[in-house]
Amino acid sequence: MQQPDPAALPLERKVSLLSGGDFWSTQSLDEAGVPAVVLTDGPHGARRQQAAADHLGFHASEPSTCFPPAVAVGSSWDPELAARVGEAVGREARALGVGVILGPGVNIKRSPLCGRNFEYYSEDPLLSGVLGAAFVRGLQTQGVGAAVKHFAANNQETDRMRVSADVDERTLREIYLAAFEHIITQARPASVMAAYNRINGAPASESTWLLTQVLREEWGFEGAVVSDWGGVGDRVAALAAGVDLQMPGPDEANDAAIMRAVRDGVLEEALVDASVRRVAALAELAAAPVVERVESAGHHALARKLAADCVVLLKNDKSTLPLAEGVRLAVIGEFAADPQFQGGGSSLINATHVDSPLEAIRTLGHPVTYAPGFTTDGTGDPKVLREEAVRIARGVEVAVVFVGLRGESEGSDRAHLDLPADQVELVRAVSAVAPHTVVVLSTGGVVSLEGWHDDVDAIVAGWLLGQASGGTLADVLSGAVNPSGHLAESIPLRLEDNPSYLTFPGEAGHVRYGEGVMVGYRHYETVGRTVRYPFGYGLSYTTYRTDEMSVDVTGDDTATVRLRATNTGDRPGKHVIQVYVATSAGRVRRPVRELRAFTKVGLRSGESRVVELPLERRSFAYYDVEGGRWVVAPGAYTVQIGESAARVVAEQTVTLTGDTDVTPLSLDSAIGDWFAHPVAGPLLQEALMAGATEEQRQQAEANSDLMEMVASIPARQYLHFPGVPVSTDDLTEILEATR
Amino acid sequence: MQQPDPAALPLERKVSLLSGGDFWSTQSLDEAGVPAVVLTDGPHGARRQQAAADHLGFHASEPSTCFPPAVAVGSSWDPELAARVGEAVGREARALGVGVILGPGVNIKRSPLCGRNFEYYSEDPLLSGVLGAAFVRGLQTQGVGAAVKHFAANNQETDRMRVSADVDERTLREIYLAAFEHIITQARPASVMAAYNRINGAPASESTWLLTQVLREEWGFEGAVVSDWGGVGDRVAALAAGVDLQMPGPDEANDAAIMRAVRDGVLEEALVDASVRRVAALAELAAAPVVERVESAGHHALARKLAADCVVLLKNDKSTLPLAEGVRLAVIGEFAADPQFQGGGSSLINATHVDSPLEAIRTLGHPVTYAPGFTTDGTGDPKVLREEAVRIARGVEVAVVFVGLRGESEGSDRAHLDLPADQVELVRAVSAVAPHTVVVLSTGGVVSLEGWHDDVDAIVAGWLLGQASGGTLADVLSGAVNPSGHLAESIPLRLEDNPSYLTFPGEAGHVRYGEGVMVGYRHYETVGRTVRYPFGYGLSYTTYRTDEMSVDVTGDDTATVRLRATNTGDRPGKHVIQVYVATSAGRVRRPVRELRAFTKVGLRSGESRVVELPLERRSFAYYDVEGGRWVVAPGAYTVQIGESAARVVAEQTVTLTGDTDVTPLSLDSAIGDWFAHPVAGPLLQEALMAGATEEQRQQAEANSDLMEMVASIPARQYLHFPGVPVSTDDLTEILEATR
Repeated sequence: MQQPDPAALPLERKVSLLSGGDFWSTQSLDEAGVPAVVLTDGPHGARRQQAAADHLGFHASEPSTCFPPAVAVGSSWDPELAARVGEAVGREARALGVGVILGPGVNIKRSPLCGRNFEYYSEDPLLSGVLGAAFVRGLQTQGVGAAVKHFAANNQETDRMRVSADVDERTLREIYLAAFEHIITQARPASVMAAYNRINGAPASESTWLLTQVLREEWGFEGAVVSDWGGVGDRVAALAAGVDLQMPGPDEANDAAIMRAVRDGVLEEALVDASVRRVAALAELAAAPVVERVESAGHHALARKLAADCVVLLKNDKSTLPLAEGVRLAVIGEFAADPQFQGGGSSLINATHVDSPLEAIRTLGHPVTYAPGFTTDGTGDPKVLREEAVRIARGVEVAVVFVGLRGESEGSDRAHLDLPADQVELVRAVSAVAPHTVVVLSTGGVVSLEGWHDDVDAIVAGWLLGQASGGTLADVLSGAVNPSGHLAESIPLRLEDNPSYLTFPGEAGHVRYGEGVMVGYRHYETVGRTVRYPFGYGLSYTTYRTDEMSVDVTGDDTATVRLRATNTGDRPGKHVIQVYVATSAGRVRRPVRELRAFTKVGLRSGESRVVELPLERRSFAYYDVEGGRWVVAPGAYTVQIGESAARVVAEQTVTLTGDTDVTPLSLDSAIGDWFAHPVAGPLLQEALMAGATEEQRQQAEANSDLMEMVASIPARQYLHFPGVPVSTDDLTEILEATR
Repeated sequence: MQQPDPAALPLERKVSLLSGGDFWSTQSLDEAGVPAVVLTDGPHGARRQQAAADHLGFHASEPSTCFPPAVAVGSSWDPELAARVGEAVGREARALGVGVILGPGVNIKRSPLCGRNFEYYSEDPLLSGVLGAAFVRGLQTQGVGAAVKHFAANNQETDRMRVSADVDERTLREIYLAAFEHIITQARPASVMAAYNRINGAPASESTWLLTQVLREEWGFEGAVVSDWGGVGDRVAALAAGVDLQMPGPDEANDAAIMRAVRDGVLEEALVDASVRRVAALAELAAAPVVERVESAGHHALARKLAADCVVLLKNDKSTLPLAEGVRLAVIGEFAADPQFQGGGSSLINATHVDSPLEAIRTLGHPVTYAPGFTTDGTGDPKVLREEAVRIARGVEVAVVFVGLRGESEGSDRAHLDLPADQVELVRAVSAVAPHTVVVLSTGGVVSLEGWHDDVDAIVAGWLLGQASGGTLADVLSGAVNPSGHLAESIPLRLEDNPSYLTFPGEAGHVRYGEGVMVGYRHYETVGRTVRYPFGYGLSYTTYRTDEMSVDVTGDDTATVRLRATNTGDRPGKHVIQVYVATSAGRVRRPVRELRAFTKVGLRSGESRVVELPLERRSFAYYDVEGGRWVVAPGAYTVQIGESAARVVAEQTVTLTGDTDVTPLSLDSAIGDWFAHPVAGPLLQEALMAGATEEQRQQAEANSDLMEMVASIPARQYLHFPGVPVSTDDLTEILEATR
């Protein structure tokens, strides 16, 4: 039966749909057949809350599988993996009656200190966008909608509900909006969540430019815009800007404000109707039948398998890893017995099962001793704990030290990059006595490796790997899995080297994105700053070769790169091919190189595969703020294959026709541009010299280099110099001649 | 006889006064007894143009003494010296019938690439402000007015007539306006020149905020605001904003536009009257009787003497300098015979006399041979020239190599910091054979010393020293003068290390001051970036000791620092005492240290002097944008005596009471601030728990750390969470209780 159009209902009824029914649901509108749909936190699990008696929705949630958080998925460089996480979370969500999962989080890791970086993929927008789109696709195959968040420029927790991200438009377009744009245009998410923060002074939730002009008109988004929880200030302004659904709710005061605004003619009812239709469309996700509860062991096994491809092997000297069969191991560190596998805040999952690295390692067949080495709750004597660890490390062949961070959470940023001092001291003490030392890191964000990096033989970046992290890490250490993760974020030598160091997290209500587009590796590579490990870096237990690279120009602004990748080692592996583009074309400062395509290919030992990656127009473009458009400047573009952002292994330069339409001359153009113009230049010269004596002509010639001093004066303004024998009409006439 | 008030004349007559009479004069207004006053370029000499037949005023000028440009005066760290330059220029100006000298230029050296840095003093606003104020005082003692320029944020030449300097207010106040503020409040200049560029999108010449609110209302400026030449776009907007005088002129079209605006009621006639009175007051400077032409030999000698204290000795290994009596010298380099002593553009002086370093050195009594080593005009074979230089360097004890830059000029920025490659090659070739090598630099801006720094024994930064540079440099080399200059600008190891590297000179019409207040040494020291030579650095032929330092707190926000300076060497010298303040007090990111006071004291060999420097409120303050005021935060302040910005030789920490009034709580304050408030916190807690069950209370307690997640939500917005049992009225009541 055809339902009545909800927008045809009385204003009061319609408006009720525009805020939540409770903390986690929309309101239903029975007379229009609109159900209430449940939206819950995620995105690396379905966080269905058990009750909602507190004001903030922090109650314990139903058990569900904690899959690898975004920090891990980002390091996989594998959209297929991201899709499988989305699919699995979607399946569990459906079983819990959830219609919308609040994720993925695709904000850019502007600073390594952002406390919520574990919920985000990368410092690079392409990597973030491709993985986010894959997650959305996977999730939505299950009939569960995504809410891509936090739109936009929510790159810190400090003062996040008020701070204004002051960021120029090119930077917004190229860095902070690009992942959203990719996801929205490629994966059509059901919804987008407006961020808490302000952008250039205006609340994101009240920015018509952001939520309507860019999101809907430019990108064609047709889903619903949902507020972040408690993120609506002025409801009428937010609705006018494009926030369809305020969460949580209900909110009678705001309903009344909307009605008043409509009646007073301040707000067009058509805007209310459009939002009502979008919320109603979103609510249709509630209509899908609830599926059976997923068998948790299966998803635990899946979580283990997926997490394995997220681990980044940073260092592996003396072939310490994989562990040789039967070597005696000292497993050290509280994180081995009590793993940190997710962060705190709204994404916290009530895991169905947690296995510890220690237990998993015990199944590998090595003689294993264990010592906690330190505690993270302040109990115990650090010296005693450390000495016990050193004691067991003396008698083994390999010490595996599990260190990391506790307490990383939504709501606060970190103040530094250091591991706790007692953990650093432990690593140094153990590595001083153990024949081989492996450090396994469990951190949601990047930590400094300085002070101990050179003391150890191997470093495994285990991030936060989800509830099966224990098994995953055992698989990597043993070699059951060949690690294939690569850094989605640079690891600097010093926090001070990070381009946002001096401006993060801002002050006086503003955070200035002073580094512009030069975020992460874009900065380090462009200023030639050495980092400990660059973006894109990651070792393997096998080796790869890249050759036969070629680039074909396929149009004015597109190309295809082709190469052969070979597994030259003796184990199967998954190889990430990273394609960067380097150029100085265009009228803006370009980063030294930017990631423009990537793929991950499985290769058996000795296997070769020819890989072809298209480079679309956007791979070469920059955002031209004055023109309000993406521009591919005519010129040379070097396509580079990188082992990381810092190490190019093959490259080829091509010339692109690009965009040949140029900005036409106007009265506001600089006089220097006028003189340089092939048509206008000579005409202006002639007009200026009309009636001049020979002496004056010679003088003008002699002064020609001095023209540089006023070259940037707008033509209109030049006319006001006394004695300039040219009028506005003359210039207009010359302009005509240029057309 | 009392003259009639010019503002009482008919509108048309009044308005005529608001643009120039020709390129270099104002219009006279005979019926009100207002003369025409001559304004000419400077400021390191009086540039009185001979004729004005071209459109741009570039004709040759009357001969006058070229004193050391600002880049040199900045390195003197000597306000007395700056005042004597001003006085001498003023005297020459008066003799030439000039009433206003367009200077000093006190823009901050944001980037070492700014092509006009030779016309500016420093990267530090205090040093710039103190020297600029001294220059103005010296100039104005002669009855000649100063026009402090370029107001404001004109820190590059590229696109200077249109580019918008996008810079936050704290940075403007603390860095880019501070020197102007100091000069205007301390030295009362007759006029200020509005800059060509835009600031945050608005033309400086049309910014009421800048030209009226800040300049007049806050700083109490009573002089005239003059446009930069050709720098007025919309005359009516510029007049309304505060540009009294448009130069050059006349401009009938703009006169008509002003009259139309007054008649249409768009522009208040009172604004016209105020500007007319200010221009008339400025024109009174024309009334001073023309003095006799200055005897040029005397001023040449003065220029030589003043320049000596501007030279910075950067390196002096093996006691290479001063030159031992009678040592055989090879003087090498085109700059020795043909010195570069000033830059190009509007400040170019037609010097009365130029002496060359080579000639001056020949008078010292050394056996001297000379080879040009290179040419800067492309003539000659570089290899042949270099080989000739190497040949003469072999046979001497000391090679003195004069290298530098040609062509530094207003109107264009540099693209890199390098000396020409043939000069670098020459230095390396000569230093490879000469027993001792001294390099003398003649540059208007900082150049890179890398690639040859370690090969030479001594480096003398001679900047641009004015027309007597030859004699000055001979004085320094011989030891007739003990060099006492210190760097007014950091010399980085790499251009890429400069904080403006990625954003200078901007793009798409905007230059983002992304580094904020972290300009120059503020950046290098705060991020711990090593430079080749830091701000404040400079060697001497003698040595100094600092001891007996003490700091007395003299009020809530003032202190006095006292120390004993001793010349511990065997020559007299002038010692610069640099006082920095380091603090982390306040709610903004502070640079690691900032220059807050300095003085230069002459000390005979063995002499000690106790020096006392007051530290005013501003020495401890930061600009609080939200409060729109300077704030001294209560807390600890470390007063440091530095040999440079990078090397502290004595320090003492004091605690200041500071400003104890705090921002009161409001409905827009974060809920976290509410909870933290001693009165409001408990009241809010109580209100939230009113009617709660014991279980709910316990739950709330358990969730208390989760409050951090919403701590930054504005109180007003928190009320919209469903179930929050507190209303706006309740909060208002609590607010009352806090008062």
